[in-house]
Amino acid sequence: MVAAFDADRDRLATFIDRFPLAKPASSFKELLDDPTLQLIASAAIPSERSAIGNHVMQAGKDYFTDKSPFTTLEQLQETRQVQQATGRRYFVYYAERVHNEAAWHAGELIKAGAVGDVLQVLNIAPHRLSATSRPGWFFDKSCYGGILTDIGSHQVEQFLTYAGCKEADINHALVRQNADFPGLEDFGEMSLTGDNGASFYSRVDWYTPDGMPVWGDGRAFILGTSGSLELRKYVDLTRQVPASKIFLTDQQKVEEIDCLGKVGFPFFGQLILDCLNGTELAMNQEHIFKAAELSMRAQRLADDHG
Amino acid sequence: MVAAFDADRDRLATFIDRFPLAKPASSFKELLDDPTLQLIASAAIPSERSAIGNHVMQAGKDYFTDKSPFTTLEQLQETRQVQQATGRRYFVYYAERVHNEAAWHAGELIKAGAVGDVLQVLNIAPHRLSATSRPGWFFDKSCYGGILTDIGSHQVEQFLTYAGCKEADINHALVRQNADFPGLEDFGEMSLTGDNGASFYSRVDWYTPDGMPVWGDGRAFILGTSGSLELRKYVDLTRQVPASKIFLTDQQKVEEIDCLGKVGFPFFGQLILDCLNGTELAMNQEHIFKAAELSMRAQRLADDHG
Repeated sequence: MVAAFDADRDRLATFIDRFPLAKPASSFKELLDDPTLQLIASAAIPSERSAIGNHVMQAGKDYFTDKSPFTTLEQLQETRQVQQATGRRYFVYYAERVHNEAAWHAGELIKAGAVGDVLQVLNIAPHRLSATSRPGWFFDKSCYGGILTDIGSHQVEQFLTYAGCKEADINHALVRQNADFPGLEDFGEMSLTGDNGASFYSRVDWYTPDGMPVWGDGRAFILGTSGSLELRKYVDLTRQVPASKIFLTDQQKVEEIDCLGKVGFPFFGQLILDCLNGTELAMNQEHIFKAAELSMRAQRLADDHG
Repeated sequence: MVAAFDADRDRLATFIDRFPLAKPASSFKELLDDPTLQLIASAAIPSERSAIGNHVMQAGKDYFTDKSPFTTLEQLQETRQVQQATGRRYFVYYAERVHNEAAWHAGELIKAGAVGDVLQVLNIAPHRLSATSRPGWFFDKSCYGGILTDIGSHQVEQFLTYAGCKEADINHALVRQNADFPGLEDFGEMSLTGDNGASFYSRVDWYTPDGMPVWGDGRAFILGTSGSLELRKYVDLTRQVPASKIFLTDQQKVEEIDCLGKVGFPFFGQLILDCLNGTELAMNQEHIFKAAELSMRAQRLADDHG
């Protein structure tokens, strides 16, 4: 990291304290105009991520945004056009797979044929609300786009990866508003069927109980024709925390695979190689966009039925 | 048990060997005419369970059938009428709740308020196919009614119990045929919303891998407003088998509750009391019928879309 900008000067100073290799920039434009920069990363308010990315790509640089990358299908359409016109990259930090060792290794196991053909991916993604520590935009749906758009984009991305799908139909989607914060959706679910027939179901919520030692007991259950995987991504209840584990059952055995500290995070190195070499090791654009598109289409279906 | 009948004489002899208190009857009618009998139980081919039950109730006795109790909505309608006309009971052995200690105890915990209001019940119900040891009717959908009708009836029954619902809408349902046995559905899923707003999702399948030490790693995840339960009903992967465990997370703690050999099976004693005293301790009729109805309505939706 060589440079950073934040419109909030205090926040920028804090950031530079933490990452002293980065020089503070005086404006976003200064970053865009710096010919030495190849990749600009951002964790802006979700509704602003698309426009920032468009500026970055139009300045001839690649972009790496926190998820969810978009809050509306219109933003996605615009960014798809900018990405194609500029030939630059719009990377998304789908952390629940790319920054979790069990989740990453599950993809490697599936590719190696550990469970046969994937019949279903089922994700349970609870999150702790921590309402008092959240910024105002967290409670404004126009800023985060809805719970399926937001948390759901991670889940769809996992489905497309594990099941090897490029497209899917949305069978059902539902969201619920929080009683205390009407702008916050605290429960969502969706059912999809992939273009290869694989099934996907996910529940996302802000109901992690205070007694849970992590922010959420994220799980994935992947059913294949010859085996199955259970991912305990953050905690192994009453046994280990933090944890990042896979339970593989196949035709011979049940095996507990401890991934914590063992798999690492190859995604980030791949992303850097993709920037430098024009490869698509980390993620290809259409996959990135399709995960966001499907989560937003599910959101729209839920909004229409709500 | 005082008497038994099977049209297959060899099977009847084997049964009497195992349960010597039972006297062999020469016909089903002999059982129906025996004034000393109060309850007749049956594990007939599913498509025949309704008609047998009607005969039993019309003979002035209560009936206890293996699940699934019906294979068509028409059978259900007829049996509902017979039950109301005779005032007798049509009990169903929804074993995945009533004959599993964790599943039973979960109901007690929820009633006691352990997780607040139930927001969702999510059931994963894999089963081992064991194709070579199955009777012919197992592969004939007209006999078992489809995978949601069959295995699914258990799951819906758990949803109605845990979430405290009396009715539900079916959002989505899907089934798939097995490649080797076209009459066998080997995958099914359904999404329901209860009349109190609670969500239900279940996957049922015949894909338990051979390495699994039990016939199926049945799980239930129950999300409440103030806590959550995970049920590991038959195995605790790599730790214990057989197992019957609840993992309760609430506002204070995560607690592992070992139910195996500790909870027992109160359902059966309650059922006998219900027969003797005309109470409804074990299950009420409408609940029994509604679980079957919803699973069959989900099946019909899946069949129509298939």
